[in-house]
Amino acid sequence: MGTRLGKQTIRLDSKPVIQSWASIVGAKEGHGPLGRFFDEIVEDEYFGEESFEKAESKFLRETLSKILMKGKVSTGDIQYIFAGDLLNQCIAANFGLRESEIPFFGLYGACSTMAESLTLGSLMVEGGFAERCVCITSSHFCSAEKQFRFPLEFGNQRPPTAQWTVTGAGGVMVGKAGDGPRVVHVTTGKIVDMGITDANDMGSAMAPAACDTITAHFRETGLPLNYYELIVTGDLGIHGKNLCLRLLEENGITVKDFFDDCGVMIYDQQKQKTDCGGSGCACSAVVLAGYILEKLSRRELNRVLFVGTGALHSPISVQQGESIPAIAHAVGIEMV
Amino acid sequence: MGTRLGKQTIRLDSKPVIQSWASIVGAKEGHGPLGRFFDEIVEDEYFGEESFEKAESKFLRETLSKILMKGKVSTGDIQYIFAGDLLNQCIAANFGLRESEIPFFGLYGACSTMAESLTLGSLMVEGGFAERCVCITSSHFCSAEKQFRFPLEFGNQRPPTAQWTVTGAGGVMVGKAGDGPRVVHVTTGKIVDMGITDANDMGSAMAPAACDTITAHFRETGLPLNYYELIVTGDLGIHGKNLCLRLLEENGITVKDFFDDCGVMIYDQQKQKTDCGGSGCACSAVVLAGYILEKLSRRELNRVLFVGTGALHSPISVQQGESIPAIAHAVGIEMV
Repeated sequence: MGTRLGKQTIRLDSKPVIQSWASIVGAKEGHGPLGRFFDEIVEDEYFGEESFEKAESKFLRETLSKILMKGKVSTGDIQYIFAGDLLNQCIAANFGLRESEIPFFGLYGACSTMAESLTLGSLMVEGGFAERCVCITSSHFCSAEKQFRFPLEFGNQRPPTAQWTVTGAGGVMVGKAGDGPRVVHVTTGKIVDMGITDANDMGSAMAPAACDTITAHFRETGLPLNYYELIVTGDLGIHGKNLCLRLLEENGITVKDFFDDCGVMIYDQQKQKTDCGGSGCACSAVVLAGYILEKLSRRELNRVLFVGTGALHSPISVQQGESIPAIAHAVGIEMV
Repeated sequence: MGTRLGKQTIRLDSKPVIQSWASIVGAKEGHGPLGRFFDEIVEDEYFGEESFEKAESKFLRETLSKILMKGKVSTGDIQYIFAGDLLNQCIAANFGLRESEIPFFGLYGACSTMAESLTLGSLMVEGGFAERCVCITSSHFCSAEKQFRFPLEFGNQRPPTAQWTVTGAGGVMVGKAGDGPRVVHVTTGKIVDMGITDANDMGSAMAPAACDTITAHFRETGLPLNYYELIVTGDLGIHGKNLCLRLLEENGITVKDFFDDCGVMIYDQQKQKTDCGGSGCACSAVVLAGYILEKLSRRELNRVLFVGTGALHSPISVQQGESIPAIAHAVGIEMV
């Protein structure tokens, strides 16, 4: 049933368990610093399909299979799937999951989708509405560049604040019982728009939203600032991460010694030439379902605040001179 | 906590109440057969804004204001808002609601969004996670034509199976207590794809999904086929409605005497030249928040099964030769 701790936060008293997780990534991600944590690395950016969009759907479909296999369940054991992606009309999820036969809730949270889906899936379990939910998302460098920026063939230059869309899919199965990491708190974000208009600097647009949600989380839970061994934002990148830390500092929240960002962690920015770091729905999803949950399950980490961040703009809104609204959802995950 | 009745259906034992509702529509909808049920009719398709996208955002923003005003609450009384729309990256919702300061879950369910949001909002109330949720969506003929089909200036011809995107926004506030219509059952759809590839015939693509969910609803609840005074699908249009009735008949579900479709109801297809009828997220949303809930609250109807239907394709997926996956979510609404 949960206990409401404030305007944005719920404590999940049953502590739903993340029973299994899986991640499949592309070559660049596989060759990055977290490569060994992913379940599968796919060198072919088409994943054997005819288009980048179909490849992205396949990343999702295969990741769902792995989650079920690792959790030793079949699709019939899952009550709901929460999924979304960055593509127009979320076709990666819609097509990737269409054969699953699982009751489906489509989401759009941009790069916050992993945290949004995990929040809703965990609440469904906590509320007694589901025995098990799958929460899953994807992104693909090539489909995202084509849709949001330029065709790859155009060979445009990237500004230093740009981020690199992660190719891959990640997801989890959350359920009632088990030994895995548990979802203990969810703090749901409001849309925050500080007037940033540069679509090549999404970190700056998202940092205030991340700061807002993290601040609300500590205010509403009353947890000490050093409660979590890791506070990890979705994909602010190097620039956004630093900005977020500065904004948190202004709110009296000094957490820089145990703060990191999935977009910073997933690539070696220097060697891999990814400018400010990774982005895309898959960025936080594969770092969660690869690195973070592995570390938790081995008890190398015990308490993590996972903060998915999303920039809620579109190419059309940017062309029309609009600023970039952003959102961040926080999920407190603990070994208990 | 709800009682799970089967793979797709939950009975909401606390029967969350639809405490207030509002709808704002464009000129064509206002001049249609349901015109007198809408809260406001906006003759200017730009709604005083500079673009169709900004106009659509304004429809949403103003509808949210009306829902709150009619419900005599302020934004601070709402724990969650569930919203989405048809535009790429759901910018109507993201921009229309960015000043609301309400914890936000973005959805993409195409034209099923009203039913999807109402399902999730009601479950949040049933689960004890929220006192009140707002569930809301929008669409706009001009922004949808531009994005999904052709610029209006092109003046393309419409095939007879085409549907007309409803301009407007509709939404509800669902909460714990009150005298209004109540959400008693939710049956969540799976993605169904029967291989239809004609994006100008979405009714045929969605009818099998509607049939699948309605069949599951009756099978899992055990309710008699004449339990509802009205079973109303989202926006199958004339052709899709007839197909759905035929498919239901094949499943032994004869409900044609109390079956209708929001897309058929909202326009006078002959006089208004809307071909097969209305579509778009706002179609089922404004028929629900205009006509259906008014009829229920006056007890002119007592039991309605509201079945939002969505076609989960995109222009890109159609260009790549893909078929059209569809989904339908059913919500049983009753006066008790």
